[in-house]
Amino acid sequence: MSENSFAPRQSRTRISRRLFLGSSVAAAALPSLLKAEEVAPAEAPASSGFSPRLLPSRELPVPTTVSAQLQGVIAAPYSPGWDTIPKDAAAWRDLAASSSAAAADAITAIRERFNLQVEKTTMAGVPVFVITPSEIAPANRNRLLVHIHGGGFVLYPGEAGAGEGMMMAGYSKCRVVSIDYRMAPDFPFPAALDDISAVWGVLLASYDPRKMGIFGTSAGGALTLSAVLRAKTEGMALPGAIAPGSPCADLTWSGDTVMANAYVDNALVSRTGWVGAAINLYAGTHDLRDPQLSPIFGDFTGFPPAILTSGTRDLLLSDTVRTHRKLRQAGVNAFLQVFEGESHAQFLTPFLPETAEAFGEIVNFFDSHLLA
Amino acid sequence: MSENSFAPRQSRTRISRRLFLGSSVAAAALPSLLKAEEVAPAEAPASSGFSPRLLPSRELPVPTTVSAQLQGVIAAPYSPGWDTIPKDAAAWRDLAASSSAAAADAITAIRERFNLQVEKTTMAGVPVFVITPSEIAPANRNRLLVHIHGGGFVLYPGEAGAGEGMMMAGYSKCRVVSIDYRMAPDFPFPAALDDISAVWGVLLASYDPRKMGIFGTSAGGALTLSAVLRAKTEGMALPGAIAPGSPCADLTWSGDTVMANAYVDNALVSRTGWVGAAINLYAGTHDLRDPQLSPIFGDFTGFPPAILTSGTRDLLLSDTVRTHRKLRQAGVNAFLQVFEGESHAQFLTPFLPETAEAFGEIVNFFDSHLLA
Repeated sequence: MSENSFAPRQSRTRISRRLFLGSSVAAAALPSLLKAEEVAPAEAPASSGFSPRLLPSRELPVPTTVSAQLQGVIAAPYSPGWDTIPKDAAAWRDLAASSSAAAADAITAIRERFNLQVEKTTMAGVPVFVITPSEIAPANRNRLLVHIHGGGFVLYPGEAGAGEGMMMAGYSKCRVVSIDYRMAPDFPFPAALDDISAVWGVLLASYDPRKMGIFGTSAGGALTLSAVLRAKTEGMALPGAIAPGSPCADLTWSGDTVMANAYVDNALVSRTGWVGAAINLYAGTHDLRDPQLSPIFGDFTGFPPAILTSGTRDLLLSDTVRTHRKLRQAGVNAFLQVFEGESHAQFLTPFLPETAEAFGEIVNFFDSHLLA
Repeated sequence: MSENSFAPRQSRTRISRRLFLGSSVAAAALPSLLKAEEVAPAEAPASSGFSPRLLPSRELPVPTTVSAQLQGVIAAPYSPGWDTIPKDAAAWRDLAASSSAAAADAITAIRERFNLQVEKTTMAGVPVFVITPSEIAPANRNRLLVHIHGGGFVLYPGEAGAGEGMMMAGYSKCRVVSIDYRMAPDFPFPAALDDISAVWGVLLASYDPRKMGIFGTSAGGALTLSAVLRAKTEGMALPGAIAPGSPCADLTWSGDTVMANAYVDNALVSRTGWVGAAINLYAGTHDLRDPQLSPIFGDFTGFPPAILTSGTRDLLLSDTVRTHRKLRQAGVNAFLQVFEGESHAQFLTPFLPETAEAFGEIVNFFDSHLLA
């Protein structure tokens, strides 16, 4: 898949672009919906040198092409508090504590639904949750899945962060270790990666790395990728497979859907909300293009097989597909699944049919690529 | 991947939706950008029973995350004539003729770039173009790729329709037969499929079906899927692999990105343009949910391995990912690739680096799944 070195003249490109699709009749006026005076300022500077496109205001219906339960999720208003940005460290700590408190009912529901044992312990001094399903599949007896939770590098301390790990244990019938890594504001980058790396080191003493997978979503997807980059750098063994879900792979927010899906995504809504501030809090003064922070800028050569998950309304659909393409360019076995109508990380919503389907693919992928 | 039968209470779903991402602090006001009086009417009725989301008017910059050449394609204005709808059959014929005339320069460029031999002939009375690359890869000596062109079931009669087939011959170093099937307004559904089926029958007499792939984009992607459905129905042998690109798999336009990417996609722009009228012209009085018309409603069991291609701005991203999910649900080996920032079928634009990458994946997929 080498890049094509043929550089077309612009005129040829323009002709060709219309070749298979557009019509070539007389130029039409821009739709009357486009009125410049109604246009809000762009949220991020367009640094391509080209003019931005003016999008008209419009109504976006709830699609009928998803389950009734998912229709309800898509129809929900923007996440409460999405654009409320904590003013100081104490307010960030309050936000983290309230995120975990709000998750408590769902955590209970997941644990009960899958009849899971959840044990809190530490590895290398890092708090972890060891999640054991009621039944372990025979092929999974010597396998372990390692979970890195999301929440913008600031939310879901404690057991609240382990929900995705619990669902994975339930759907996969495999043991899961979920890492309760240190977070901003008190422990910014690279504390989280230090913790993940320390736990990975402990696990390598007990498990064949080819029998371990690492997974996580959003910030947890970014940390999954960064953890592999760091293991590569440090000469540690790599896992047998990974599953980064809708990874925040580019903390510079350069992905196209960061803008195209702004106000379409009802989970993150826009980078101008709390999540943008959270990422700055996490990164501190570090260069956002550091691959340990933004793994899209890293070298994916030698990465294990990877399955990536996103949704068509996801603010980070671009981060996901760019990660997929870059993995493929590096020759990695990488599989992409994108769910109709879902906003950021909504494939984790308990217990939609689409959630079972997303986890089903991931479980199947781990089962195909981890040594038994 | 069975569906989960657990039906959560709505309140639990709502709690859970916020679990991993959103914050749970006090509800925030809708962004001030949302002003009801600026909202254009929805293009399609929301039949889910839920209220639509109001999207503010905004600016969408050209992303810097793609090649300089693709940035130019993304920055281009809406396709000239996208919302000009021919008034009668004669006007449709004029549009088809001018689409082919406008493509002539690009066709020449592609043929020269790849040094292709293109021979016009007929099979079962159907005009086809037999495309032979200057060099045939050893593994491809007994293989054949069958191309079904796009253009909304109405555009690109003659050699103009074979451009995608020519690029495939060039990138794959494999022979390609491109079918110049009959089109609306003179020959509506199912004339195109009758022609494709007739050619397939002829080819089966000379080639092992496991050594043949079928591919096409947009209308050609839909026809690729429908051709396999029809072959199944008629008990004909199926190809060894298929590559539907951004298929118009759902002619009822129900996919979420038909609305979410309206006015974001600069190729099709909106279903309210010529393409919506073209599909009605093609379908005539037939039920749009007939799987031969809208393959998303068909049974994909037993389908050959499939690779699907789309872009994040594609009006038919939903059709593509829904087809991918449905293939996977049917147990089919199906691979999805989605390109950053690309509108409908822009992965065919000669000769972007991203085009070489998209074809590279498809060529690799055919090479992996077709018998040598």
